[in-house]
Amino acid sequence: MGLNLARKIIGKHLVKGEMVAKKEIAIKIDQTLTQDSTGTMAYLQFEALGIDKVKTKKSVAYIDHNILQTGPENADDHLYIQTVAKKHGIYFSKPGNGICHQVHLERFGVPGQTILGSDSHTPTGGGIGMLAIGAGGLDVAVAMAGGEYYITMPEIVKVNLKGTLKPWVSAKDVILELLRRLSVKGGVSKIFEYCGEGVKNLTVPERATITNMGAELGATTSIFPSDERTYEFLKAQGREEDFSELKSDEDAEYDECVEIDLSELEPLAACPHSPDNVVKISELKNTKVNQIAIGSCTNSSYVDLMKAAKILEGKTINENVSLVIAPGSKQVLTMLAQNGALASLVSSGARILECGCGPCIGMGQSPCTNGVSLRTFNRNFEGRSGTVSAKVYIVSPEVAAASAITGCITEPKELGESFKIDIPKKFLINDNLVVSPAKDGENVDIVRGPNIKPFPIAKPLNNTVEGKVLTKVVDNITTDHIMPSNAKLLPFRSNIPYLSQYCLTPCDKEFPEKAKQNKGGFIVGGVNYGQGSSREHAALVPLYLGIKAVLAKSFARIHMANLINNGIMPLTFEKPEDYDEIDVMDELIIENAEEQVESGMVKVKNVTKNKEYIMILNITDRQKQMIKLGGLLNMIKQD
Amino acid sequence: MGLNLARKIIGKHLVKGEMVAKKEIAIKIDQTLTQDSTGTMAYLQFEALGIDKVKTKKSVAYIDHNILQTGPENADDHLYIQTVAKKHGIYFSKPGNGICHQVHLERFGVPGQTILGSDSHTPTGGGIGMLAIGAGGLDVAVAMAGGEYYITMPEIVKVNLKGTLKPWVSAKDVILELLRRLSVKGGVSKIFEYCGEGVKNLTVPERATITNMGAELGATTSIFPSDERTYEFLKAQGREEDFSELKSDEDAEYDECVEIDLSELEPLAACPHSPDNVVKISELKNTKVNQIAIGSCTNSSYVDLMKAAKILEGKTINENVSLVIAPGSKQVLTMLAQNGALASLVSSGARILECGCGPCIGMGQSPCTNGVSLRTFNRNFEGRSGTVSAKVYIVSPEVAAASAITGCITEPKELGESFKIDIPKKFLINDNLVVSPAKDGENVDIVRGPNIKPFPIAKPLNNTVEGKVLTKVVDNITTDHIMPSNAKLLPFRSNIPYLSQYCLTPCDKEFPEKAKQNKGGFIVGGVNYGQGSSREHAALVPLYLGIKAVLAKSFARIHMANLINNGIMPLTFEKPEDYDEIDVMDELIIENAEEQVESGMVKVKNVTKNKEYIMILNITDRQKQMIKLGGLLNMIKQD
Repeated sequence: MGLNLARKIIGKHLVKGEMVAKKEIAIKIDQTLTQDSTGTMAYLQFEALGIDKVKTKKSVAYIDHNILQTGPENADDHLYIQTVAKKHGIYFSKPGNGICHQVHLERFGVPGQTILGSDSHTPTGGGIGMLAIGAGGLDVAVAMAGGEYYITMPEIVKVNLKGTLKPWVSAKDVILELLRRLSVKGGVSKIFEYCGEGVKNLTVPERATITNMGAELGATTSIFPSDERTYEFLKAQGREEDFSELKSDEDAEYDECVEIDLSELEPLAACPHSPDNVVKISELKNTKVNQIAIGSCTNSSYVDLMKAAKILEGKTINENVSLVIAPGSKQVLTMLAQNGALASLVSSGARILECGCGPCIGMGQSPCTNGVSLRTFNRNFEGRSGTVSAKVYIVSPEVAAASAITGCITEPKELGESFKIDIPKKFLINDNLVVSPAKDGENVDIVRGPNIKPFPIAKPLNNTVEGKVLTKVVDNITTDHIMPSNAKLLPFRSNIPYLSQYCLTPCDKEFPEKAKQNKGGFIVGGVNYGQGSSREHAALVPLYLGIKAVLAKSFARIHMANLINNGIMPLTFEKPEDYDEIDVMDELIIENAEEQVESGMVKVKNVTKNKEYIMILNITDRQKQMIKLGGLLNMIKQD
Repeated sequence: MGLNLARKIIGKHLVKGEMVAKKEIAIKIDQTLTQDSTGTMAYLQFEALGIDKVKTKKSVAYIDHNILQTGPENADDHLYIQTVAKKHGIYFSKPGNGICHQVHLERFGVPGQTILGSDSHTPTGGGIGMLAIGAGGLDVAVAMAGGEYYITMPEIVKVNLKGTLKPWVSAKDVILELLRRLSVKGGVSKIFEYCGEGVKNLTVPERATITNMGAELGATTSIFPSDERTYEFLKAQGREEDFSELKSDEDAEYDECVEIDLSELEPLAACPHSPDNVVKISELKNTKVNQIAIGSCTNSSYVDLMKAAKILEGKTINENVSLVIAPGSKQVLTMLAQNGALASLVSSGARILECGCGPCIGMGQSPCTNGVSLRTFNRNFEGRSGTVSAKVYIVSPEVAAASAITGCITEPKELGESFKIDIPKKFLINDNLVVSPAKDGENVDIVRGPNIKPFPIAKPLNNTVEGKVLTKVVDNITTDHIMPSNAKLLPFRSNIPYLSQYCLTPCDKEFPEKAKQNKGGFIVGGVNYGQGSSREHAALVPLYLGIKAVLAKSFARIHMANLINNGIMPLTFEKPEDYDEIDVMDELIIENAEEQVESGMVKVKNVTKNKEYIMILNITDRQKQMIKLGGLLNMIKQD
């Protein structure tokens, strides 16, 4: 049997392990990207590795998250990243240049290469046939240093596309349909590979919308073949030399198969508060809207904004609607400014935001209380917009623009004749906001603002681990509970001591204080502890507070990896009912810790209650090493 | 002797009093404007007056300050203002439409009319021959209700302009020169009237830059004649019917005279941390710059941004500089988007911010720690940028653009040939972001978000006023000390209870708590208590906390008026040395308060120290009435 495209690329990059689903493999990383809310930490970690120059083919540091700058912290982080990048061989994309995923697709992505990015939407690169994976900052730092990336070999799902999208139906509706069918957990440990005759009817920006939001399926990544449409796109970007044709073998094998007939899709929306809560736009007709936002790494391309401009040309937005548009990149913005489309958008009443993530990460444009907001973004979690009571719907740019005119959720076909926007023959190319690294970094001084604090590094495992239970939390605690992230805390992503004051406070206000007073200790959690984002800070901050282990009924995959990377034991109750017995301030002790970690079964004594609990430590040998040595950084340094 | 223009306009609007300098007069107000950081309060106060429909010729509510929206508070305020405006006959300028002063000049200002605005830069309107004055929100509310505006008759200063500006010298340099000569206190209780043959060489946008920054002189307002340049501007705005010629009589009398030869000016900069700390650009050459910001109500016109675009066309900004540009209005932005200038700016590397006040009020784009920031704004007070350690220089758009290219403070003449940008023959006119008021407001429901709290109203004066001294502060306490204003607190301008937790905390962290525990009391201050902005919140918040009187060595003029408007006695020590004797928590008592207020001399007994202090209450009879009745609102309601 033949190979699918994902296995071909993984195979070419395989350093360790075998391509057997659910087994650990290690792959070589060609490119990395970081954004600024995770980047500062990733570069501090890279510095700790003591490497002069990155060993990747290309590493790019983007500034796109923290660009509101309501205090000096953001600009200080930008300056740190700019100087550390210059010194160590990393390209620096200045604020104003755009959203990492959009810019990387336009200017740097290469079909067939692997890219690791410290952002969960890194899979956008799959739109041009990259194997593009999101990871924690430390994993990206290790990749920059030339280290391999460890991952569980995913199952490969074939998504067979048939036909062509009807007028007014959008790439967004393809991925919303998949979310409707498979749910936000349907893609865990899987790669979605798009095939079939329908593929050729989708442009690269459309493909990128789909691979980007594959993240919402929980997928490891998503990928399209690299074909004549990819060539067109790269040629229009002046990068035809980066093209290579890539596709699965005719008789390729897949672990699963899904089929979508593009011609049968209708405009869809993900309703509050989950990207998989999908219904037809026709079912939402006449819902009044307060705000409409077009942009984000999912739908801010030239094609997306040209569609919006075409719909809004000569029109005026409804008086009760605020329409905000954040172009994805300087390239997009300049082209719209040159061809008159931006003038159409502004004339209609649109507010133009800076090229960046903006409202998608709650960085501004929070809707009014109880407000209805239509957004072309990828996530509509409760409160993510900055307004807890807001009702956020995820829709295509076409639906967004049409609804801006009427003031209520509207099927775009009601506006009349459809049209087709193609990618231009030639994109406007001007990379003058990308600063090249120094030829010789030795004389480059790194500027560290006062908000940039050293990050904590775990100590090797003590053979006796003891301490108090500092807090006990319920099921489904998210990384947002462990390390809250909002417009007020995001500027402090490079200041773990500051952030530590907020650790777990949504569950237990006293937790940081208790951790300090007791010089660390244990956390007890329920089912699915640490679900949500890949935020490494949710492990770094507990490490800073002296947390030695988390005892839980079960763990979310990425958070568990982040705990291990930072030398914190993720211990699972063999008997979930033991959870009930433990109280806050109970004194726990783990003896012969090294030996027990090695065995994968850890006995925890509750001194206060005079009981013993069997805990499972179901991790790889490499991860056991990490726990013993005090995390990934210590392990690499020892190598 | 003939009349000057200011006296002509005041004379036509005089309702009470005589035009004798330093005497109280009352004038009729034709137009009002509000912005959103003061507007919510102004409209709450207007509602308290119980008037159905504004009685002005035109009232406009702008949204330009709080447009970052990092939580629901801003959008809630916007919605409140939009609905209250619709109900009560006020035009509503939606977010995205631009900065109040820029838009008002373009679309609504009328030569010869009076305008009162709840923003200190309202004098911008003087650029087209309006008598344009900034005031507290309550005064604006009263004006909307048809009430007269009380003011001390200012002295009129003739500013005689000769000659023409040299190439690369800007309107900004005219007002910086005046600030250099007269200082930030040089304009207090004065109106600056521009005359002379040099006037005709300045376009309306240039004139508006000058009148806008007259506020930095401390002036009541500044005014230019309405002449053929005004006609050109209004005609290009499609508003020739609003034009009337206005000038001083040939033999007009003035209280003072200043002369400026435009042809002798050079590019100037106001250095940190005061707008009057002015030196020549040539003296600052080669100072390295981190950030450059073009925009604000002073320099965000079409002409200003076209100059920047011309300088930056085909160039790339220095790699170490972040250049941010906030266009003044939708009109400006659309025109630049249509004519290619915006494409030039973005191509060069500029970050385009929303049309609004933005970085000028610390709403984003705070520089890095110790950063040097060149700004075309009007104020460079320490910390106003959001970065306490930043060094902010105020410069012209020409200097800003030139320096963006080189990365250090640069004389624009070094860039080569000069050029001239004129106002266009026809501005692009599209007022579709201005929502008209309802014909019949009766059925309009006002939407009040949960952050909009009722504001405090003072009670009539008790005949015995007693309480403790809650805090004792030093000289030169500013309104920023009394009611801090930053990106974190600005969203709460409609929530006095919330703001009260921060009252005077920069001087005394315990003050709000002490005030609460003691149910109010007294504040003791030094010289120039309450200097700074016109912020009414610096009186409303103490009122909320139960402050009955402030005892100080002297008061800043506007804050004193705001205290009186809110029924708080501003008492001045007859013997400044009495200040030294008072301690925090001393028990004070004022007996026969009504009679003593009437007499203008108030004896305050210090029960704790068994002493008595003579305090002066040097206010008008009308103001004494206000104190007795519990503030302006109560007085008006009684009428």
